[in-house]
Amino acid sequence: MQLTFTKGHGTENDFVLLPDLDATLDLTAEQVRRITDRHAGIGADGVIRVVRTRDVPEVADQAGAAEWFMDYRNADGSAAEMCGNGVRVFVAYLLREKLLDGVDWTGGVLAVATRAGTKHVRIEEADHLAVDLGAWQVVGGQQALDDGGDCQVALPGTDGLVAALSLDLGNPHTVVMLPNEPDLEALDLSTAPTVIPEPPNGTNVEFVVLVSSGHVRMRVHERGVGETRSCGTGAAAAALAARAWVSVAGGGEVDLWRVDVPGGTLLVRLSAEGTVELAGPAELVADGTLTL
Amino acid sequence: MQLTFTKGHGTENDFVLLPDLDATLDLTAEQVRRITDRHAGIGADGVIRVVRTRDVPEVADQAGAAEWFMDYRNADGSAAEMCGNGVRVFVAYLLREKLLDGVDWTGGVLAVATRAGTKHVRIEEADHLAVDLGAWQVVGGQQALDDGGDCQVALPGTDGLVAALSLDLGNPHTVVMLPNEPDLEALDLSTAPTVIPEPPNGTNVEFVVLVSSGHVRMRVHERGVGETRSCGTGAAAAALAARAWVSVAGGGEVDLWRVDVPGGTLLVRLSAEGTVELAGPAELVADGTLTL
Repeated sequence: MQLTFTKGHGTENDFVLLPDLDATLDLTAEQVRRITDRHAGIGADGVIRVVRTRDVPEVADQAGAAEWFMDYRNADGSAAEMCGNGVRVFVAYLLREKLLDGVDWTGGVLAVATRAGTKHVRIEEADHLAVDLGAWQVVGGQQALDDGGDCQVALPGTDGLVAALSLDLGNPHTVVMLPNEPDLEALDLSTAPTVIPEPPNGTNVEFVVLVSSGHVRMRVHERGVGETRSCGTGAAAAALAARAWVSVAGGGEVDLWRVDVPGGTLLVRLSAEGTVELAGPAELVADGTLTL
Repeated sequence: MQLTFTKGHGTENDFVLLPDLDATLDLTAEQVRRITDRHAGIGADGVIRVVRTRDVPEVADQAGAAEWFMDYRNADGSAAEMCGNGVRVFVAYLLREKLLDGVDWTGGVLAVATRAGTKHVRIEEADHLAVDLGAWQVVGGQQALDDGGDCQVALPGTDGLVAALSLDLGNPHTVVMLPNEPDLEALDLSTAPTVIPEPPNGTNVEFVVLVSSGHVRMRVHERGVGETRSCGTGAAAAALAARAWVSVAGGGEVDLWRVDVPGGTLLVRLSAEGTVELAGPAELVADGTLTL
């Protein structure tokens, strides 16, 4: 079996894109695992099937709003709802392949169907795009902000517990604001950090250093994956937590944040509607044919 | 800059092959690192440039013996002498691309130029090949065999020291024969095992379980790399050590060994000339164009 593919990444969160313009590709979990295998296959964090929304029953109700469906699969073969880095690479691919002829993207904003509903991607440049991640909330509300956190995280490699803030961006995040010491780069994130109390469904944990107002650096341990080079919703959570801390400390409401992750730089912006927008690069690095 | 590439692997030791039939590709270390980057590039353990021997001054003295030079680069961009898994994938590529027209491979044996001299590859099938790795020796000689080893390795996760045997296959290996406990799969090989006395130039360490006479399972920690899915010379070292131990225990001289590595199965054979031959699969999984 031969498949046409493109490999791309957004801040080193990487994907194999499979065009399926005729909606004939019935991708099994086993095939996804073979494609994403970093030694025996191409290797990627996930697979994105490029298919028309109207051709996929589970999302066909979005066909009026969005021509294309980002059919995202995790490296383990399971279906995923959304990926903030993946959707930028998806749209960069649609642009390059000229698959948007006849599609409405008034004002440079394109609607994309996902399993988490229709998402809107603003095309800043062909290789730099912004996606509205939707609503978000601080789980513990104002009380958590006033208290400097709603939970604690054991700092890897030390006996210390540090205060952390829980945020919900559709998926769970726990953000730790580090003092200058210990050094962010020195943290051992080879195992999942301990969060107290333990979240029932696990959590992504972000370790953040404030560089200046509107600028943080972070590393992330993703639930069920381990440390990654980048996590889109994690960057948004880090920025939102930093924004809240700066605000509580009397630094004002800063709505645009630069987030440096190991794989590059993302921009997080509070939208006028109160949702959160993630902007960043999308790079298409290779094209070819894969033998399965 | 656009490059045509093929990705292949031998027991999950993986490579990006770059055809350079006109010898015009001046590959920098930085380019190799970008290609082998598993997130921002294609990802591989190494890059193999496919080029005619006569066109490369450093190996041109082998041009009379071997039409093609396997120009192997490690993932970090440095030039390497040889790779037992890579040379099989290299020849599988030459066969598929029909680059052996007019080349002499009498008896199914093809000569390949490498920085370690001309190597001979026996083509058993288009996707199963055997390479003669050349001479080998037990560093401590007969005394080491009689003593059950010439050095000791600290068993990861325990306080125990176990006897081990040093072998030279052009590169250094230290082979540890494990009892049934601890379980091979349970060993923590995330850091380099401690070898006593410490080898001055480091060593690859193989942990081996004897399944039966002529059959071992192993895991390997490669010098400067970490644990890998497969190591060709490591498999040969494991088989040669197991052969010696079986012989000392009165089990006779067994010349053909099956070696199960995490990435698949290799066969190791003592050749009639006293050299050691490594046989195994070679798979070409993807072809395309890479943008650097």
